[in-house]
Amino acid sequence: MPTPKKFSGVLSPVITPFNEDLSVNSNRLVGQCRWMISQGVGLAIFGTNSEANSLSIKEKMELLDKLVENGIDPNKMMPGTGCCSLFETIELTTHSINLGVSGNLLLPPFYYKGVSDEGLYASYSEIIERIGNSNFRIYLYNIPPVSNVPISIKLIERLIKNYPNTVVGIKDSSGDWDNTINMLNQKWDDFRVFVGSEIFLLDNMRNGGSGCISATANVNPAAIRHLYQNWNNENASNYQKKLEKVRNIFEEFPMIPALKAAAAIYKNDLEWCRVRPPLLSLNKPQLEQLESTLREIEFSMPGLIDY
Amino acid sequence: MPTPKKFSGVLSPVITPFNEDLSVNSNRLVGQCRWMISQGVGLAIFGTNSEANSLSIKEKMELLDKLVENGIDPNKMMPGTGCCSLFETIELTTHSINLGVSGNLLLPPFYYKGVSDEGLYASYSEIIERIGNSNFRIYLYNIPPVSNVPISIKLIERLIKNYPNTVVGIKDSSGDWDNTINMLNQKWDDFRVFVGSEIFLLDNMRNGGSGCISATANVNPAAIRHLYQNWNNENASNYQKKLEKVRNIFEEFPMIPALKAAAAIYKNDLEWCRVRPPLLSLNKPQLEQLESTLREIEFSMPGLIDY
Repeated sequence: MPTPKKFSGVLSPVITPFNEDLSVNSNRLVGQCRWMISQGVGLAIFGTNSEANSLSIKEKMELLDKLVENGIDPNKMMPGTGCCSLFETIELTTHSINLGVSGNLLLPPFYYKGVSDEGLYASYSEIIERIGNSNFRIYLYNIPPVSNVPISIKLIERLIKNYPNTVVGIKDSSGDWDNTINMLNQKWDDFRVFVGSEIFLLDNMRNGGSGCISATANVNPAAIRHLYQNWNNENASNYQKKLEKVRNIFEEFPMIPALKAAAAIYKNDLEWCRVRPPLLSLNKPQLEQLESTLREIEFSMPGLIDY
Repeated sequence: MPTPKKFSGVLSPVITPFNEDLSVNSNRLVGQCRWMISQGVGLAIFGTNSEANSLSIKEKMELLDKLVENGIDPNKMMPGTGCCSLFETIELTTHSINLGVSGNLLLPPFYYKGVSDEGLYASYSEIIERIGNSNFRIYLYNIPPVSNVPISIKLIERLIKNYPNTVVGIKDSSGDWDNTINMLNQKWDDFRVFVGSEIFLLDNMRNGGSGCISATANVNPAAIRHLYQNWNNENASNYQKKLEKVRNIFEEFPMIPALKAAAAIYKNDLEWCRVRPPLLSLNKPQLEQLESTLREIEFSMPGLIDY
């Protein structure tokens, strides 16, 4: 297998469609992945916004197989494979590396709280040593608002120092620009810093960042990609403002149900609305509100219908 | 299979011993379970203090089999089987019910935060409906300091109303007596309220509670059981004070490593010290400090050595 290239650009935590019995509809997922790729957006499948932690490890392994069988390029995949259990993280991650993914987005073990940097280092270190695969590339996943387990600068530094070929980047979903800029200011050698929302995309690019991995890339991929490619352009601030306009609409709803509702609206396929508990689909007034707001700004999802 | 009897009394989230390669040492676990039972304490295996969320679902299913094969009475078990993923919760819970456990301690799905009561209700409801077993008994697990997903009075009420034969109790590990007394004051019909620490045991019993499910029951089972049985005795306040003295020693250390260190000290078997990352074993000074403090109060773990 070829050495994986490091990621840069825009990736999407691909939303996961469900059947009526709440099983995963893998055909719809393949379609969404194809559309993402057609828009120049990479596949951070099994992210927070994919409801990954509402899927079983078995489902995730089967889905990875299914996507690859259906021609989705594993090179474009950065699956989220960090579980609470060390052995599950190892099993799922290994499975994905064997399929040829270019990187893995790794949550820290997120059940126990107030754990030390030393303990988190031990966790990542065990994972790396036990997997023992030179094609393994970790993108750390810092999302304290959800995981409640922050990844500190000191921890990153230690991991980079001891595993320079493995620990190659981070997704910072702290929502705190001060935290992101602090990472960027470390000037770690070719370490890829992704922001967790396009709200920070221009700032990230101007300060040496590598792109964003964003929920709303599920619905607004081309425009986000456009800013990524043209951040040095004199109109970049205008592109940024346009992205924010769309993002802010989604921020007014529960994010995951709203992303799925948008897919349902623009694909004219209400089955897309389904989520797994503990999440709830948008109710009818919310759905209508979202639709009318999106129509108002003449929002569109070009090409979506073909997949 | 006979209808399960509701739990009352003292249960322990049994600590999980690991081999050098971090696999579970099931023989040591069988021994700890036997000792718990010999002390009159029930088995809340796979609790927070069992490092259950550092175990894979496969490990947990195999361990359940192993315990039953080794003669540990499933009637005395209340395994923690609530996972992030709906389908994993169903698989693991069903496996345990088929082995004859008397109840299950069910965490809410704990990855997504800020979820609604409606969403949590949908989660528990899907679990109950899909399992569809009249022997299924749920003890809700409220542990917001770790799960960050609190279980509200209104949610409990709705669950009891719609599933009166299934939702039969709760472990309140909020650490907030106001929350516990609020539950007790609802006077739900034969609903079993367990506190998550013996610190609140006497108060719980005086207000109609059913006992406690406590980490330190791993090390101080007989004394906690004694208070449970004699809470109406005139010396009960003294028993309570004695329990607190021991508990407070353990509270000065990271709890899980300290419980395991105590087992190691009193069994003269340092292998018991091992934890899985992201937790860390006590370091040498901590271990010595714990040992000398316990010796100072002439603490003992009678009968432990035989198992």
